[in-house]
Amino acid sequence: MDDAQDIIATAHDMADAARAAILPLFRSAGLAADNKYTKGFDPVTEADRAAERAMREVLAERRPNDSILGEEYGRTEGSSGLTWILDPIDGTRAFICGAPSWGVLIGLSDGSDIIYGIIDQPYIGERFEGGLGVSRLVSAAGERPLAVRQGVDLANATLMTTFPEVGTEAEAAAFKRVSQQVRLTRYGLDCYAYALLALGQIDLVIEAGLQSYDIAGPMAVVQAAGGIVTDWQGGPVLEGGQVVAAASPLLHKAALELLNG
Amino acid sequence: MDDAQDIIATAHDMADAARAAILPLFRSAGLAADNKYTKGFDPVTEADRAAERAMREVLAERRPNDSILGEEYGRTEGSSGLTWILDPIDGTRAFICGAPSWGVLIGLSDGSDIIYGIIDQPYIGERFEGGLGVSRLVSAAGERPLAVRQGVDLANATLMTTFPEVGTEAEAAAFKRVSQQVRLTRYGLDCYAYALLALGQIDLVIEAGLQSYDIAGPMAVVQAAGGIVTDWQGGPVLEGGQVVAAASPLLHKAALELLNG
Repeated sequence: MDDAQDIIATAHDMADAARAAILPLFRSAGLAADNKYTKGFDPVTEADRAAERAMREVLAERRPNDSILGEEYGRTEGSSGLTWILDPIDGTRAFICGAPSWGVLIGLSDGSDIIYGIIDQPYIGERFEGGLGVSRLVSAAGERPLAVRQGVDLANATLMTTFPEVGTEAEAAAFKRVSQQVRLTRYGLDCYAYALLALGQIDLVIEAGLQSYDIAGPMAVVQAAGGIVTDWQGGPVLEGGQVVAAASPLLHKAALELLNG
Repeated sequence: MDDAQDIIATAHDMADAARAAILPLFRSAGLAADNKYTKGFDPVTEADRAAERAMREVLAERRPNDSILGEEYGRTEGSSGLTWILDPIDGTRAFICGAPSWGVLIGLSDGSDIIYGIIDQPYIGERFEGGLGVSRLVSAAGERPLAVRQGVDLANATLMTTFPEVGTEAEAAAFKRVSQQVRLTRYGLDCYAYALLALGQIDLVIEAGLQSYDIAGPMAVVQAAGGIVTDWQGGPVLEGGQVVAAASPLLHKAALELLNG
């Protein structure tokens, strides 16, 4: 097995392990949501922590020399030059509401780029995957190739973001300049919005205040499907922050101009 | 078979027929969204129309004497005193985005009350059902009873609505008075929000500008699960308009006071 095949097989094992850890807790009666911060509301559930532990166990077994950066348990240094970037449950607010728009995010960095990633939705049973020559949705219904749609201009575009507030006041105003020019804006889908972009169902995702583990997996999936993911200045987005993901160069350019207008 | 059993069996046949009509079109490449109104964006797809036709065919076969009120094909008068209220796809905007938060809504009115209803999500494979002695979620995983959760006060409640704009400016301001008092507000789930309320996952749904077919099915499901559904004045909501659905009398009262504050 060459390394790309081993990486892909390992990632699927990790996503399977996360599913097994999370699903018994999704919509369970006793699920407790802690407050990670004293200000605001950032629920972190036992499911989050159990899923990251399960993914780390797979890596310890199969690829012990890779580094790991996880939302819940931080950084573990390895020697291979590859880093797995893990968000065991992206969209914990959706999760504690019982809404199946949360996802398990897995991204793999080679130190300069995200070369592979997964957005997994365990309850629906959908695994969106991109990189290392792969771009597909795997579900009980089989495999479906992922590809962004082309030929949609800004006036006919569908835009998604997670929170209507978006970020700071200035970020919200910038978002609104784009939102006012598109056909349809929808809220609340967390990582699932990037999956819909890669599926060719929507055209733009714009967010602010992200962490690197929020965007590593989705970026790989969108880029492998032919989309463009940058920060609001058009630069790389590895560290999180402001993100614009677009189905086409045309839409990406139009969004950047309005965000910085 | 007594009439309640026949009604329930008929409703499941209708939901099955709608699923079969809709699923081949969900996320299909050629799906066209027409503009039903010249102002604003109200996509009505072929899936909408095909699903309502499929449900009407089941009724013509099984219960030809019942009346029908459907979003797409209007009113058909019957002689039984019962009226089926159908929204073949609630959440067409979610549908054309590929997001599985839309649903097939079926409600049954006896002329004064909604006595039975279904919220069906074909892609996820979930059927939420309430009335005539039934309150359950039916899915591939089996059956699960539906029951709202109790003991959550307003400060710890989760609130959902579909559009951040909610309705008119005054309606949006009223909504904001509630939203500012709750722990978490989430957007964008259409009828699926009522399903999550009936599942005991969230505590309040507040909306405005609804049609009767938007709320008939969800109302039956929420009420059978122990929740309360009224208009913003605490009166009946059969004709649509402003809706508040609450998990408990305490939350319902608190929401009404703030909405009218």
